[in-house]
Amino acid sequence: MRLRNVKNAKEIVNNCSFVIKNPADYKGKYNELIFQNNNPIHLEIGMGKGQFLIKMAKKYPEINFIGIEKYESVLCRAIEKIMDEPLDNLRIICADALEISEIFQKEIDILYLNFSDPWPKTRHAKRRLTSFVFLPIYDKIFKDYPTIIQKTDNKLLFASSIVSLSEYGYKIVECSLDLAHSDIPNETTEYEDKFSKMGETINYLKAIKK
Amino acid sequence: MRLRNVKNAKEIVNNCSFVIKNPADYKGKYNELIFQNNNPIHLEIGMGKGQFLIKMAKKYPEINFIGIEKYESVLCRAIEKIMDEPLDNLRIICADALEISEIFQKEIDILYLNFSDPWPKTRHAKRRLTSFVFLPIYDKIFKDYPTIIQKTDNKLLFASSIVSLSEYGYKIVECSLDLAHSDIPNETTEYEDKFSKMGETINYLKAIKK
Repeated sequence: MRLRNVKNAKEIVNNCSFVIKNPADYKGKYNELIFQNNNPIHLEIGMGKGQFLIKMAKKYPEINFIGIEKYESVLCRAIEKIMDEPLDNLRIICADALEISEIFQKEIDILYLNFSDPWPKTRHAKRRLTSFVFLPIYDKIFKDYPTIIQKTDNKLLFASSIVSLSEYGYKIVECSLDLAHSDIPNETTEYEDKFSKMGETINYLKAIKK
Repeated sequence: MRLRNVKNAKEIVNNCSFVIKNPADYKGKYNELIFQNNNPIHLEIGMGKGQFLIKMAKKYPEINFIGIEKYESVLCRAIEKIMDEPLDNLRIICADALEISEIFQKEIDILYLNFSDPWPKTRHAKRRLTSFVFLPIYDKIFKDYPTIIQKTDNKLLFASSIVSLSEYGYKIVECSLDLAHSDIPNETTEYEDKFSKMGETINYLKAIKK
């Protein structure tokens, strides 16, 4: 994700009605206090410019979607898009992935990790969002069976995810090394569109821990 | 694997000293009767022209290797290569993969599946060597923890293997989507050399069921 500096990014994010301020205040109560329904909650870590989450929220109105993004400048791009057509089932949080167990508690149904930073160097492997640092954190936020859906063009990140998820007790229940030519339903991200046009293949997995 | 008809293939196979005739006669007794040692036994199903297994047998003299190949014509190519330099720790069996639980019993340490037929059509999925048809058969031949090492250029076969191994209780303990550029030790097959030269990537996994 290329970072462009957005003037007043912090102000834009803070003044936006669908950005959740002080998200830790709602821990364990997102259904009750934020969405006011009992629909499942799907979370995307690293929502970027928001295309995936906006399309998902429109397609599945009976599911609540929350996007997390740590960079305010990036979040402004997503806010611009959502502004045109706000959705009751879509909310945004500006936070780092490491903080999520302070924000949520046993209330997430599915976690999406789309085109996360691959951290290709071995000494940075623990920073990958499917590393042994993050998997125990995720355990705390899931309602029932931890369920992670990951997409990436990066071969090293994908292989590393398969091993760490598998060793941590997840079963890989769906997998494709060429998502666009599989029969798995898919909404694309901005990055994915660009990458697919270059003829590259996208890797996909769905993992469940029971 | 392109099949070329070899004249007298059956005769060549039957007269070869390192081809095991009537392999079911040695069921459960390969260490004692065939290798006369207690070294681990590694099995390759679909050994093809034999390059991988010959290189492995030379590199690891303290491991016994057995290659299975169903086509006599293909086996003749492997026999030609081995003839030049027979190895005490390398034997061959002409058989179909479906028969292996009649041939072995609790005596195999590692199973290699290199560039197996991907059977890309969904209606043929059960013929893939990592399908739910084969995994219970393999359970019967392993000595301790079932351990499968697979290599393939085929994206669909690889993804399908990850899901079926994972759902059957295997953990994927090693994985690469670009074996040649990983740090995993590797001996290549004839097919793999040809394919790698074309710039294509090789997928690799090691799975263990405990």
